[in-house]
Amino acid sequence: MQPGIHLDFRAGFLHNVCVSSGVKKIDAAKENPQFGYDESFFSPAAFALESSIIRDILKYSSQPGVISFAGGLPAPEMFPVEQIKAAADHVLVQYGTLALQYGLSRGYLPLREFLADWIAQRGGDGISPEDIIVTAGSQQGLDMVGRAFLTPGRYVLCSRPTYLGALQAFNYYQAKYATVEIDENGMKVDDLEAKIKQYNPAFIYVVPNFQNPAGVTLTEERRYKLVDLAHRYHVPIVDDNPYGELRYSGSDQVSLKKIGGDAVIQLGTFSKIISPGLRIGWTVGPSEVMDVLERVKQSTDLHTNQFAQYVVHEYVLGGELERHIKRLIKSYKERRDTMLKGMAEFFPDTVVWTKPEGGLFLWVILPDGVVGKDLFMQAIEEKVAFVPGKPFDPTGTMENTMRLNFSNASVEMIREGIKRLGRVFQQL
Amino acid sequence: MQPGIHLDFRAGFLHNVCVSSGVKKIDAAKENPQFGYDESFFSPAAFALESSIIRDILKYSSQPGVISFAGGLPAPEMFPVEQIKAAADHVLVQYGTLALQYGLSRGYLPLREFLADWIAQRGGDGISPEDIIVTAGSQQGLDMVGRAFLTPGRYVLCSRPTYLGALQAFNYYQAKYATVEIDENGMKVDDLEAKIKQYNPAFIYVVPNFQNPAGVTLTEERRYKLVDLAHRYHVPIVDDNPYGELRYSGSDQVSLKKIGGDAVIQLGTFSKIISPGLRIGWTVGPSEVMDVLERVKQSTDLHTNQFAQYVVHEYVLGGELERHIKRLIKSYKERRDTMLKGMAEFFPDTVVWTKPEGGLFLWVILPDGVVGKDLFMQAIEEKVAFVPGKPFDPTGTMENTMRLNFSNASVEMIREGIKRLGRVFQQL
Repeated sequence: MQPGIHLDFRAGFLHNVCVSSGVKKIDAAKENPQFGYDESFFSPAAFALESSIIRDILKYSSQPGVISFAGGLPAPEMFPVEQIKAAADHVLVQYGTLALQYGLSRGYLPLREFLADWIAQRGGDGISPEDIIVTAGSQQGLDMVGRAFLTPGRYVLCSRPTYLGALQAFNYYQAKYATVEIDENGMKVDDLEAKIKQYNPAFIYVVPNFQNPAGVTLTEERRYKLVDLAHRYHVPIVDDNPYGELRYSGSDQVSLKKIGGDAVIQLGTFSKIISPGLRIGWTVGPSEVMDVLERVKQSTDLHTNQFAQYVVHEYVLGGELERHIKRLIKSYKERRDTMLKGMAEFFPDTVVWTKPEGGLFLWVILPDGVVGKDLFMQAIEEKVAFVPGKPFDPTGTMENTMRLNFSNASVEMIREGIKRLGRVFQQL
Repeated sequence: MQPGIHLDFRAGFLHNVCVSSGVKKIDAAKENPQFGYDESFFSPAAFALESSIIRDILKYSSQPGVISFAGGLPAPEMFPVEQIKAAADHVLVQYGTLALQYGLSRGYLPLREFLADWIAQRGGDGISPEDIIVTAGSQQGLDMVGRAFLTPGRYVLCSRPTYLGALQAFNYYQAKYATVEIDENGMKVDDLEAKIKQYNPAFIYVVPNFQNPAGVTLTEERRYKLVDLAHRYHVPIVDDNPYGELRYSGSDQVSLKKIGGDAVIQLGTFSKIISPGLRIGWTVGPSEVMDVLERVKQSTDLHTNQFAQYVVHEYVLGGELERHIKRLIKSYKERRDTMLKGMAEFFPDTVVWTKPEGGLFLWVILPDGVVGKDLFMQAIEEKVAFVPGKPFDPTGTMENTMRLNFSNASVEMIREGIKRLGRVFQQL
């Protein structure tokens, strides 16, 4: 079984073009319409987009009996289904047609008012609802930021590894990447200044809290250093913060948005603290940026799902969100601890890993020469799945790494899955 | 009151840059973060995006007492609120967490299975669920098609006037436009061949049924001619069909998708027949195109709102959709007839207009020299609003035209609004 073949989306695409080969059959148009598309029909930037390895490996990780640490899925049993149902009922009884009509491109005002307060409580002072755009998850925020700032060949300055979904969003805009390393304290900001001077990046992309994929958190000292560099060289910071609420140990770090002010464009989402299926996220930033992003949003999909915005607003109004986050923290902390305990017990000394204080992921570094993608196929035979780390590296190396998710599987499954991974590692 | 100023979004934007002028205050970063953004920070293509005039004039048309024919809003009193509520309840009781979890980029399979059958019933033979991607309204379908096919300077071949939202979506990709005129039988396809030879367009964009803005419908003869040209010159057709179900008189025309086969990429939406706030549309096309669009969708927002897809699927399953469309047709036919009757009664002979067989809009041509945008401000003083036609013209002319919507106001308001417009015209 060659994963290379199975994981390469475009191999299948080109095959389709071969077999359809409609180009030769144009004359038969009316009788039996055939019409072939080859690469020349498409925007090279769009055609070059690669499918997310995470979605491609779902076909393996979803096989019966496979314990998956591969995705980034929240625990479904934690979704507040009853409260969402109550909120949906109330919205349709109370607001009826308003929740089903077209809405504003910036988003439902009462939800943006809630978000402005919520962000203020977390140190984002002086945020007005007009500084916020409600997006279809923070993935859309990443695409919109890429669209607003990037031109072909322009550099994004980020860490390696960094969030795969951000690379996918920025890749369409033909961004190049200037990278700095990470350690247990997050992005090595001391290396940023030289890169800023050398590459003049459009922005610095950072996941400051419990980073995806490595689970590391930027220390307070590094946050001030990062913000100082952003101001000194006048480079915006894109602060991608989907996991900030999910801290299981250690103490909260100061918000980049608070200390960075207008230099910081912050992305948030309810995907990890309410439900990802509702696709409600937000982008907050200075008015000059929001004005451009509003026009981008309008041309992209007019506005975010109005009904879902009403439902989420109704849900959060009751103060239910804070209670729910407490429940999530309790449950995810147990899962993280179970995974770390199992790794200490079953993984060989030749393997090292991060110890996140929150979030959904941790990062494993395998011995040099081990290729995560090959190991993946061995793991599947042991009925356990993970994501090889290489796709998270903008430079496309880091073969000997992997990302493990601990938010989706139960503690029992986590312990068993780590035991299985341990068996795979023993074969190294 | 100079509408030019009020309707130019970027005037306000540049003003913001002036007043913030943070560029001079970088040294003050730490104490009091100031960080200015000027045009040089942004992608020129994104910065150049113009806000929809329709959304900009909302601030006038939403003034108390103003009767608006400006938007493209469905009649809210027609929304099936009770049935949506029942569907939402059933979905959360029956499927619970599944409707709140991450989903497939192509969309919820049972909904795509329904759509495949639904499209087949309308003549789209042999459509498989894999040929369909569920989008955030058809506006996102337009953006995705633009992203997949367009490169800067590439031509889109379309009619003038054409749908403003399509121009907004394609403008970001720096498309140029080759245009043919329309008449009461839709796009003048006899003029297409020369334009295809001259401009080698990436695709032909057409709204075949009850076109937005003019309300005209492409005749069967022209449809076959269009499809034949598409095959002969191997140019895809983008068939934007949001209004196809809403026919009030005349007889259905053969589906472009049926006769065009793989040459046709069709966009559909539930926005005009269920609810626009739910943002559920779809794109259907050949597998080579869908494979590219799936990767585009993934990098844009991962997938469409899962809860809304479940709710819409639950709603349409009961066959309720067909009954609802019958109710919409009855109500919108009455509104269209009321508007046409009023126009015949109150408009001067110097004004001419289209007589749509369906959809939401009709098109008015004013005497030469009349500027719709100036007339708009006079109409607002008479407490009636419309959309000037110029923005719907890719060549930016057609000053002496306007679009009227008849789906949102009640029959009483329509008659009164047309009477007021008549008074404005008498002053010409």
